[in-house]
Amino acid sequence: MNPGAPETGLAEPHLAEVLTTVSLDVEYVRAAGNHLFRLDDNGREVPVLDFVGGFGSVLLGHNDPEIVTYARKLLDNQLPIHAQFSRASHANRLAAALNEILQREHGDDERYFAIFANSGAEAIEAAIKHAELGRTLRVAALTGEIEANVEAARALVRAGQAVVADSAFDRAGVRERPQGPGARFDALVAGIERHNARRLSAPPLFLAPEGAFHGKLMGSVQLTHNEAFRVPFRALAAQTRFIPLGQPEAIQKTVDAERGVLYDVVVVDGAVTVVDRDFPVFCAFVLEPLQGEGGIHEVPPEFAREVRRVCDAIGCPVVVDEIQSGMGRTGSFLAAPAVGLRGDYYTLAKSLGGGVAKTSVALIRESHYHKEFELVHSSTFAKDGFSSLVALKVLELLEADGGALYRRAGELGRKLLAALEAVRAEFPDVIKDVRGRGLMLGVEFHDRSDAGAPAIRDLARSGFLGYAVAGYLLREHSVRLFPTGSAVNTLRLEPSVRLTDDGIEQLRTALRGVCSVLRDEDGQRFLGGGPATS
Amino acid sequence: MNPGAPETGLAEPHLAEVLTTVSLDVEYVRAAGNHLFRLDDNGREVPVLDFVGGFGSVLLGHNDPEIVTYARKLLDNQLPIHAQFSRASHANRLAAALNEILQREHGDDERYFAIFANSGAEAIEAAIKHAELGRTLRVAALTGEIEANVEAARALVRAGQAVVADSAFDRAGVRERPQGPGARFDALVAGIERHNARRLSAPPLFLAPEGAFHGKLMGSVQLTHNEAFRVPFRALAAQTRFIPLGQPEAIQKTVDAERGVLYDVVVVDGAVTVVDRDFPVFCAFVLEPLQGEGGIHEVPPEFAREVRRVCDAIGCPVVVDEIQSGMGRTGSFLAAPAVGLRGDYYTLAKSLGGGVAKTSVALIRESHYHKEFELVHSSTFAKDGFSSLVALKVLELLEADGGALYRRAGELGRKLLAALEAVRAEFPDVIKDVRGRGLMLGVEFHDRSDAGAPAIRDLARSGFLGYAVAGYLLREHSVRLFPTGSAVNTLRLEPSVRLTDDGIEQLRTALRGVCSVLRDEDGQRFLGGGPATS
Repeated sequence: MNPGAPETGLAEPHLAEVLTTVSLDVEYVRAAGNHLFRLDDNGREVPVLDFVGGFGSVLLGHNDPEIVTYARKLLDNQLPIHAQFSRASHANRLAAALNEILQREHGDDERYFAIFANSGAEAIEAAIKHAELGRTLRVAALTGEIEANVEAARALVRAGQAVVADSAFDRAGVRERPQGPGARFDALVAGIERHNARRLSAPPLFLAPEGAFHGKLMGSVQLTHNEAFRVPFRALAAQTRFIPLGQPEAIQKTVDAERGVLYDVVVVDGAVTVVDRDFPVFCAFVLEPLQGEGGIHEVPPEFAREVRRVCDAIGCPVVVDEIQSGMGRTGSFLAAPAVGLRGDYYTLAKSLGGGVAKTSVALIRESHYHKEFELVHSSTFAKDGFSSLVALKVLELLEADGGALYRRAGELGRKLLAALEAVRAEFPDVIKDVRGRGLMLGVEFHDRSDAGAPAIRDLARSGFLGYAVAGYLLREHSVRLFPTGSAVNTLRLEPSVRLTDDGIEQLRTALRGVCSVLRDEDGQRFLGGGPATS
Repeated sequence: MNPGAPETGLAEPHLAEVLTTVSLDVEYVRAAGNHLFRLDDNGREVPVLDFVGGFGSVLLGHNDPEIVTYARKLLDNQLPIHAQFSRASHANRLAAALNEILQREHGDDERYFAIFANSGAEAIEAAIKHAELGRTLRVAALTGEIEANVEAARALVRAGQAVVADSAFDRAGVRERPQGPGARFDALVAGIERHNARRLSAPPLFLAPEGAFHGKLMGSVQLTHNEAFRVPFRALAAQTRFIPLGQPEAIQKTVDAERGVLYDVVVVDGAVTVVDRDFPVFCAFVLEPLQGEGGIHEVPPEFAREVRRVCDAIGCPVVVDEIQSGMGRTGSFLAAPAVGLRGDYYTLAKSLGGGVAKTSVALIRESHYHKEFELVHSSTFAKDGFSSLVALKVLELLEADGGALYRRAGELGRKLLAALEAVRAEFPDVIKDVRGRGLMLGVEFHDRSDAGAPAIRDLARSGFLGYAVAGYLLREHSVRLFPTGSAVNTLRLEPSVRLTDDGIEQLRTALRGVCSVLRDEDGQRFLGGGPATS
């Protein structure tokens, strides 16, 4: 470990350049609690107060002593890390511990089966693959029924007990209408099969709210609303229909607009009749209870209710992505109950690994679970002893003392929000909004595309104002904060439960500082050129 | 860590049942070197000789002392693990070290940029996303050229210096042919635009050999040939055209069959002429130099040559997946040079994490690199200090003493292969083939679907014979081996460089044992019912 070694810039050099332009190209040499440490020119450690928190991965703080000690013990004990295809006791214990918590949060005893993965995005991909397996099983059952109905009708036609009326051809949109009962039936079935084949070949669709973020792998990136992240890769995988969080009524409209049917036949009073069967075109509705990357927006309860109502009606599973909001961050283990949301699936990652291990999980409700999935999905690195046991230790710490850590996250969050509210009240022309829940908060700055200072105006117009604010806070106040990728004027705060009152005070001072500079349009000072107006 | 704790079976219980039926549901309590340890009925450790090796993740052995000591030191030193969007010195040093090795293997100084990820499948997804970004940039350049050519032709038509002949309409398949030069040109362009829009809306295709395995995420699973893994999820993402490894000539045929063109216009001697422009429909050719999961099959050099020739001709990047074959496993850092393959991209994972960390990388040739990718792709867990430094330590160990570990892998592999050859020579009716390179070997058993012993016959017919062989070897000889998922009669051997001569002898004895039982069709003994014929 030699932080001073020369860099040759082969790991994302362009990103490094961008960080440099906004003073964010800092080297951190140590991390503990709510601080990262950099070295000053004399080689002395400078603590930086971290509100980024590994994008929500270190709820317990950086290098939490209990987690680190435990991880070391696992290494000392020569724990089997790679023992694929053996009895996965640790993973089973972790799944059981997660179920105990879920049952408490849900107030019932329905079980959730666990598919482990390595990152948040991988958990989403596993969940979606499982949902798609469920959809294809439903499609297979439906086409099986249709085939059986066709054969039953064919038998009646052959026996002279049923005929195909012109209305059936009309209904199925079949033009060719030959003579003879058998030929007419065959022509109708051919038309039905053509229609059904077309429908069956269409890829599934996903539903998600606008502002959604579910990762950046080939499939999961299609669920991520931000066009910069998604559109270049849209030809790679099935698409999502995005719905504004403020328009719950748009859910039903979207479903209706995409509704597809297969044609089926029934014999009614001796007439072969064509009927519609609903085709399950939607694979899953995926949503975060509290959007992180999208700019800290909580799902309105009426939206959550409508998701559940529509999805139940069409038999579409609801995947609740708690990768960022879960693990106690908002003051309870899950953020979903606060908005009245119950998931058929949940995904967890980030702090599940305690800031040390990489692990994630898709939890799938027993009533929605397809055990066949276990034989077709796997990952070499997933379900390993090390990350499973570290995650168990994390749950133990979260649940200790009757959930003291959840309460602390809630209390700290309220204090922090009050501090942010106070800064907004002082600088209403600079800060537009503060919002969020627990230790997942957002500070939205007013747009400054019309600022008088050219430096500030140009940054705002290029979408980099939030990053420049972050650079200022880091340089001038040793406070680490970033805007979200999809709401570039909103700073996201995800500190650990190790945040102190002094830390909140440091943040308040830092925010007041940058608000002054922005209010005064002091472009030179904003960009680190010393105290002067631009 | 309490391996005796009760299991509630919520982490893939169906898989656990399957393992139980073939005696593979073993609990391992410790791992060191080339051994996993289970407890006997008296609580004493029983060493199990491991040829699974984390599916290739522990080339250095389980819990390698140097790696573990180093990992512990990183934890002791409070290394920043989560410091996203800061100067990533460790990742840059790792990228530089990988480049040094690649340059030696290639014998030139072309650089490869590194995109880090958390698992092998994630590295594949990153590589494919990057390749698709490249394809869309090429498409955008092409459509831009066509638009410019159309505008240039339009100007000539307006100026009366060019006309649209009927042959142009024929060429573009446009039926409507109005009067007047302007109207004719507009009609032609409308037809061209219809054709081009149709072509542009088609999803990209991938190329891969039959037997390919590149992971199981939504996108990467489409590159995995095994139908059981792939087909249930085929509606989720872009598709692959698979080519038999033994038919290099099929590469060109496949490319020709899928060739798509956009229409463009040029003005030749005053005539607006329609010409074809090749449309880049293929996103990437992805292949393993030595297939692992597909049953240990090395790419024939003539296939590798043809991949390169065809891909260069159509401008399609070649992604060489060294996730299983790389990191020294076959006796050199990469397995590709041995078959004459040069990658535009390489993917690495498995042993890159030293059996302790989870990390992977997609390395992309400078001439094929698109720096825009860095701003649209990322992962919270990737590029972290911990896994980057562990991987650097792995490279240091591999490269020490002028590559002594590579040489050891090669020598051990030759000894092991000789031992396997000897068993095959003794049991030619049981073992069909042994093959592979270095410490990545396969033992293919003859099909036993017509065995006289019903127990053996039934297992063979249900595809579980290989797993039952694995169960026998574990139960009777404490040797851990699995068949590959896609070649169920082939056992895969991926031991660590800590394998000893005694270990090879133990394997030889074990294999001779199971070969005797299979030759004698001793079904009862095979399934653990004691020595008797079924």
